[in-house]
Amino acid sequence: MAGSTLSSIDRRLVRRIRAAIGDAPVAISLGNSNSDGPAGANPVARVHIADRKTLMKLVLDPEVGFGDAYMTGRITINGDLVRLLELVLESMQKAGSEGWYARLRSGLLRITQPNSLRGSARNIHHHYDVPTDFYKLWLDSRLVYTCAYFPTPSATLEDAQIAKMDHVCRKLCLQPGEAVVETGCGWGALALHMARHYGVTVRAFNVSKEQIAFARQRAQAEGLAHRVEFIHDDYRNVSGRFDAFVSVGMLEHVGQEHYADLARVIHRSIGDSGRGLLHFIGRNRPHPFSSWIKMRIFPGAYAPALSQVMPMFEPWNFSVQDVENIGRHYASTLEHWLARFEGGVDRITEMFGAEFVRAWRLYLAGSLASFRISTLQLFQVVFAGSQCQNIPWTRQHLYARADLAQKEQKWFVATSSS
Amino acid sequence: MAGSTLSSIDRRLVRRIRAAIGDAPVAISLGNSNSDGPAGANPVARVHIADRKTLMKLVLDPEVGFGDAYMTGRITINGDLVRLLELVLESMQKAGSEGWYARLRSGLLRITQPNSLRGSARNIHHHYDVPTDFYKLWLDSRLVYTCAYFPTPSATLEDAQIAKMDHVCRKLCLQPGEAVVETGCGWGALALHMARHYGVTVRAFNVSKEQIAFARQRAQAEGLAHRVEFIHDDYRNVSGRFDAFVSVGMLEHVGQEHYADLARVIHRSIGDSGRGLLHFIGRNRPHPFSSWIKMRIFPGAYAPALSQVMPMFEPWNFSVQDVENIGRHYASTLEHWLARFEGGVDRITEMFGAEFVRAWRLYLAGSLASFRISTLQLFQVVFAGSQCQNIPWTRQHLYARADLAQKEQKWFVATSSS
Repeated sequence: MAGSTLSSIDRRLVRRIRAAIGDAPVAISLGNSNSDGPAGANPVARVHIADRKTLMKLVLDPEVGFGDAYMTGRITINGDLVRLLELVLESMQKAGSEGWYARLRSGLLRITQPNSLRGSARNIHHHYDVPTDFYKLWLDSRLVYTCAYFPTPSATLEDAQIAKMDHVCRKLCLQPGEAVVETGCGWGALALHMARHYGVTVRAFNVSKEQIAFARQRAQAEGLAHRVEFIHDDYRNVSGRFDAFVSVGMLEHVGQEHYADLARVIHRSIGDSGRGLLHFIGRNRPHPFSSWIKMRIFPGAYAPALSQVMPMFEPWNFSVQDVENIGRHYASTLEHWLARFEGGVDRITEMFGAEFVRAWRLYLAGSLASFRISTLQLFQVVFAGSQCQNIPWTRQHLYARADLAQKEQKWFVATSSS
Repeated sequence: MAGSTLSSIDRRLVRRIRAAIGDAPVAISLGNSNSDGPAGANPVARVHIADRKTLMKLVLDPEVGFGDAYMTGRITINGDLVRLLELVLESMQKAGSEGWYARLRSGLLRITQPNSLRGSARNIHHHYDVPTDFYKLWLDSRLVYTCAYFPTPSATLEDAQIAKMDHVCRKLCLQPGEAVVETGCGWGALALHMARHYGVTVRAFNVSKEQIAFARQRAQAEGLAHRVEFIHDDYRNVSGRFDAFVSVGMLEHVGQEHYADLARVIHRSIGDSGRGLLHFIGRNRPHPFSSWIKMRIFPGAYAPALSQVMPMFEPWNFSVQDVENIGRHYASTLEHWLARFEGGVDRITEMFGAEFVRAWRLYLAGSLASFRISTLQLFQVVFAGSQCQNIPWTRQHLYARADLAQKEQKWFVATSSS
C-alpha cells in the first residue's frame, strides 16, 4: 500500500506519540502516508490515525484524544488492543506527569461531575440505566457487574460470581435471621443470594431506577419479596438498624469528598455492634480516574488508595479486620466480559450503533489492561464496630469446603469484653 | 478495719478518680481512712492509695501517676488487676481528652525519645537488653516475643508461636533457595524457622546486642549458621538484594517520622519484584502510646493506625495484598505470658526486685486489657512490588493442612505482565 511520506510537522507529532509509548513494537500511520518508524517484524498492533487534527488532539490530551478518536473511528487499530493499551499505560505511568491540558480537563471534570444527591443520580443514570438487555449480552446469568472471585483460575464466570457472593457473605459471617443493609445493589443478585442462602433479611438501595425495577421483579419471581426490599434511593438516605452493612462496587461512585458521609451512614446503620464490608476498585496511590472514562463511561468515578479509605473508619472507632486485594481476579473477570461482549457485537451494534460498541470495547479492554499491569487494584475491606461479637477467630472458615459450612459456628468465639 | 473518714479535699480528689472510672464496681481507700463510696457487694478490685501526694499525682497525670505509684507500691490493688484496667481504660477512652499535664508529658516524651540511629539503640537497649534469663521464665521455649497465632483458641503458646511463624512464611510464599531480609529479629526464632522449614537464606538485623549474641549461638547450635546471618545493626543500614522482606514487631519502635526511611530500605532490598510483610501493634485511629509505658517500658514506642502506615507503600508503587487483624490473638498470647510471669514471680523478684515485678506485671496486664477491649490491634500487612510474580491466586494456601503444603505451588499463577 504505497502512500506519501510524512511531512516534517506530522513526523514531529508522531515522534511525541512514539516517545509516550516507549519502545513498544507498534506501527503508527497517518492519513494516507506510510507507517512511521520501524515497528519490528511482528508489531503488537498497527495504529492508524485519520488526520493531523486527530494527531494533534492526541498529543495535547492523550487519554481523551485517543479515546474519542477510537470511539468515533478516526483512530483504527489492527492487532491486540489490550496488549497495546498495557504498553501505553505502562509507559505513561513511567513518564509520570501529564501535560497542562490533560490536567485542566481532569480538574474541570471534578467540578462538573459532583457526587451530590442530584449529581450522583445523574452520574449513575448515565451508565447503569443503559437497558438491561445490553448487560444481559455479556454479564453472567445473575447480572453481577463487579469483580468475580475465581476459586481457581479456570473457574467459569458463573461459578466465580457465585463464589464472590459467598466469599462476601462468609467474610460478613452472616447468620440466619440477621438484618443486612446493602448500598449500591445493582440488579439485586447479592441481596437475593444473601436472603436465599444465608437466611437474612435485606434492605438494598440503588439510585438506578432501571436496576431497582429489575431487581424487584426478580425478588417477586424468586419468592423472596418478603425478605428483600429494594429501595430506589441514595445511600445517604438509608434508615433503620442492621446487623451488617455491605457495599460492592459503589465506593468508586461515592467520591472522596463524601467518604465521611458514607461512614456516618454506616455507623448510623450498624452502630458499635455491627460489621461491614466494602468492595471497591482502588489504587496503590492516589490518582484520578482516566478522564476519558469519566467523560464517556463513568461520570464522577474515583478509585481510591487505601490511605484515602482508612480514615473513614476512624471517627467511629471501627476496627479494620481484613483487607484482601483480588485485583488479578478482576483481570480474569474482564477477560470473560470482553470475550462475551465481542461475541455479541453484531447485536450490540444493531441496538446502539458502532460508536457505542467501540466506546465500550475500549472501556473493557482498557480496564483489563489496567488490572493486568496492576495500575488498578480490587480491595475488599472488612470492618467491625468496637462492641462487635461476630469476629471470627481466624479466616479459616472462608476456605472451608461447602459441606463444612454448617460447622462454621465453632470458629466464633465471643470477645471477652462482652 | 476502722479508720478516720476522708477530709473534704481528699473526698473531692477521690471523686475525680471515681468520675474517671465511671460506675465500675471498684472500692477506693486512702491512707488509713475508710473506703470512699459504695462499690457494691463484689467489687472487681480494691484500690488502696497510700497518701494524698500519690492521690494528687493520680489526678494530675492519671497514666503515669497510677503506673509509678503501682510500681513503687504507693498504690496497692486487691482483686482482678486486668479487669480493673479494662474498666479504667474503657472509661478513659469514652471521656476523651486528657488534661494539660498529661498532654505536656506526652509531648516531652516525643522529644526526649527520638528514634534516630543513636536514639533507637538506646531505646531498644532499655527493654530488650534485660538478661535473656528473665524472658526465658515466661516466653515460649523459642523466645518469640510477639503476638502468637492460635489456630484454635485452646492451642498451647508453644504451638501458637510455631503457627504464627508458619502463617508469616506462608503469607510471604517463601520458596527454597530464596533470600530473605528480616529487620528486628529478636532472639532469632523466625529467621531460624524460615531457614529450617522453608529452605531460604536469611540476613537478620537487630540493634539489641544481647539478642544478637544469643541468636548467633543458637544458629551455631542448630547447624544453621551458614544459612542465617545475624547482624548487629539498625534497619537503616540494611544492604543487599533479597526476594522477601519481613519485620515482626519492629514497626512499633520505628516511629512515624521514620516510616518513609523504612519504606526506602524495603524497596532498596526487594525492588519491584519482591514482596514483604509487616507485623505490628496498631490502633483504630491515631493516638500516642501510654506515657507510662513509654517512660518505664518501651521508650520511643508508637502503635500506628492503618491510615498512617498505608502511605509508606505509595512512593514505591507497592500493592497492599492482604491485611489481617489478629488483635484477639494478642489477648490470648498475653494471658499465657502473664500466667507464666506470675508463676515465675519469686525467681524474678530475686533477680530484679519487687518494683521491677510490679512494673512488668502492670505492663503485661495493661497490654492484655488493651487488646481485650480493642484499643490496640495487631496488623499483619502483606505487600508486593509492581513486578512481583509470587502473588498467590487466593489465600486458600494459608489454610491448607500441613501435609498439603507441598502442593501449594499450584496456587501460584504468574501475573500476565511478565
